[in-house]
Amino acid sequence: MSVPLPNPLLVRYRLTLADGESGEARALRLACEQTSELTPDLVPDSAQSYLGRVVAVESAEPDLSGRRAALATISLPAEAAGTDLAQLLVLLYGNASLQPGVRVESVVWPAQVLAQFAGPSFGIDGLRELAGVPERRALLCGAAKPLGLSSPQLARRVAALALGGADLIKDDHGISDPPCAPFAERVAVCQEAVARANRATGGSALYLPTLSGLPSDLTWRIERLREVGCRAALVAPLALGLETVREIAASSGLALMAHPALSGAFFAPDHGISPAVLLGDLFRLAGCDAVIYPHEGGRFPFPAAWSTALAEHLRAPLGGPLPAFPVPAGGIAAARVPELVGSLGPDTIFLIGSALYGEPDLERATARVASVIRENGR
Amino acid sequence: MSVPLPNPLLVRYRLTLADGESGEARALRLACEQTSELTPDLVPDSAQSYLGRVVAVESAEPDLSGRRAALATISLPAEAAGTDLAQLLVLLYGNASLQPGVRVESVVWPAQVLAQFAGPSFGIDGLRELAGVPERRALLCGAAKPLGLSSPQLARRVAALALGGADLIKDDHGISDPPCAPFAERVAVCQEAVARANRATGGSALYLPTLSGLPSDLTWRIERLREVGCRAALVAPLALGLETVREIAASSGLALMAHPALSGAFFAPDHGISPAVLLGDLFRLAGCDAVIYPHEGGRFPFPAAWSTALAEHLRAPLGGPLPAFPVPAGGIAAARVPELVGSLGPDTIFLIGSALYGEPDLERATARVASVIRENGR
Repeated sequence: MSVPLPNPLLVRYRLTLADGESGEARALRLACEQTSELTPDLVPDSAQSYLGRVVAVESAEPDLSGRRAALATISLPAEAAGTDLAQLLVLLYGNASLQPGVRVESVVWPAQVLAQFAGPSFGIDGLRELAGVPERRALLCGAAKPLGLSSPQLARRVAALALGGADLIKDDHGISDPPCAPFAERVAVCQEAVARANRATGGSALYLPTLSGLPSDLTWRIERLREVGCRAALVAPLALGLETVREIAASSGLALMAHPALSGAFFAPDHGISPAVLLGDLFRLAGCDAVIYPHEGGRFPFPAAWSTALAEHLRAPLGGPLPAFPVPAGGIAAARVPELVGSLGPDTIFLIGSALYGEPDLERATARVASVIRENGR
Repeated sequence: MSVPLPNPLLVRYRLTLADGESGEARALRLACEQTSELTPDLVPDSAQSYLGRVVAVESAEPDLSGRRAALATISLPAEAAGTDLAQLLVLLYGNASLQPGVRVESVVWPAQVLAQFAGPSFGIDGLRELAGVPERRALLCGAAKPLGLSSPQLARRVAALALGGADLIKDDHGISDPPCAPFAERVAVCQEAVARANRATGGSALYLPTLSGLPSDLTWRIERLREVGCRAALVAPLALGLETVREIAASSGLALMAHPALSGAFFAPDHGISPAVLLGDLFRLAGCDAVIYPHEGGRFPFPAAWSTALAEHLRAPLGGPLPAFPVPAGGIAAARVPELVGSLGPDTIFLIGSALYGEPDLERATARVASVIRENGR
């Protein structure tokens, strides 16, 4: 028999089983679907090395409605995707997504595969430096919102957040190039606002505009960010595509914060990709220096175990690729910050968006949260 | 009160309700989440026109486990996304994906919004012409597979499919640039194989290589396709990003067939986006001339009603954007073709992949299915 390729991905899938279906048979079907798209008997000898292989199958806890499930470890030929991270995602879950009840639980990344992806250009230390916070404390990120304001109106909010002590200020991800605040104009006035605030405070707050559009639009928009002095941007990797984000990370000189838009489609308990793999591993490999996710207890139902695993995956040593900041978000109440700073540790960016807008004075509300983070976030 | 923007998207969402939750309250929360990310009282007057609005809420059938649900029609400001189709997808479902039980059932597209998207460059008639099938009959698409074969091995299979009478021959979507069949080499030898077969048959079979990679890779790969004479390609819009696909469609001169890789993450009955909207409307607006989907009765559990609606959305008049071919696939048995030709009609491309490889002679198996389609597919 043929020998599998070196450096395979070992992927652990949770498979929900139909009545009478064996975990082994189901795992084999998945392994073929993700590689040959033929049953093994129809795969010529010369192509057998690229065939997915079932390494192990265990039975798993049944789901809430009592359906049986299996945990299958499948070996997939990483060579098939080469250095193409979007193809790697397709190798993990492309057609699998169309089978019933398949979830990517975890992936073992061989060093040789990781070596193909540069990962974050700045990482935790680099982004700290860019934001002027070299000391090891948690950071505060504010949000310029809402969609519908003009560029000068947004700039005033950016200024208030920076004067109040936010370390980073991002656009809402829905504010890309709306007629009320067109990209080219908005990034100039918001960057000018943050620069003016920085001169007043002596700080280095970073403004991160939402970056999206056609590849040719991205080219001029990145050039525009360079012109106005922006050093970082917000991207939505599942909207832009992982390879587009990877190229921006590698060539733009911008630090990137990832937004989880659309990712919730992948987070069913029995179908999809675990947040640790999708937002943790893959967004980091795509070159994101910080990754936003909804934190437990906010307005999205995101289990605490997911946040913990995701934050670990972003920060853990991974050979070449630098660690990235976890950015808990999604309606964190300012009052919870002290507790969260304690549990999440200093290598965290707290994204406090809407909570600051509930108070009468945005700058003062920001200052209060910023001082909590400065005092407790070590 | 402020006036909403003209030309809003009217989006019908199915919302699974928690115990005691009202459909109205839930719909309002969603409308805010997708636009202001603030509660309405915190949205300044000048931004109210961009706020999502609840137009109507009806109660829906409970789901299989008896949970209550509502059907909410929400008006969203299409202006926010402008001509950016990926941002439009984010406007429809970005943060919504992270709420529990939200499904986009349908979208009413205003003509002014549609006018911003060129859609398919070839459409059904143009792709027919490219494939040398101007007469109104169904088309046959074969697949060059499996992953793991060398370029010359794949080219021999491409030749057999073309000699047998396939109108189109696509790469498996997992075959992009693997070391066993690198892109630059593969597309040359496979295109040469199809050209030689076309000279023998007098036909115009089209070869569609898988196109993926970094934006800068796409540039040279598209150039390479031009060099070797390829006129069409296979893309996976959810891996590449909708805007990347749109730019390829608008500027490459290639006809595009879309692969549904990853789309199954969106197809839970109570969470995600209906296939008619995602694969039908959005892939068509991104410029895909043909869209592959798993047909009912194959190896993926795809309800017949989804296929029917999807095919309708691809073909229906839509003002500017040309109609696109539905491409039923996913393990269609050759024996089912006569029945399917009858129900799906002549503006259909049948993708018969693995079924042809189960027979000893690929060319002869192709010829048999091709003659069925030629005889019955009108």
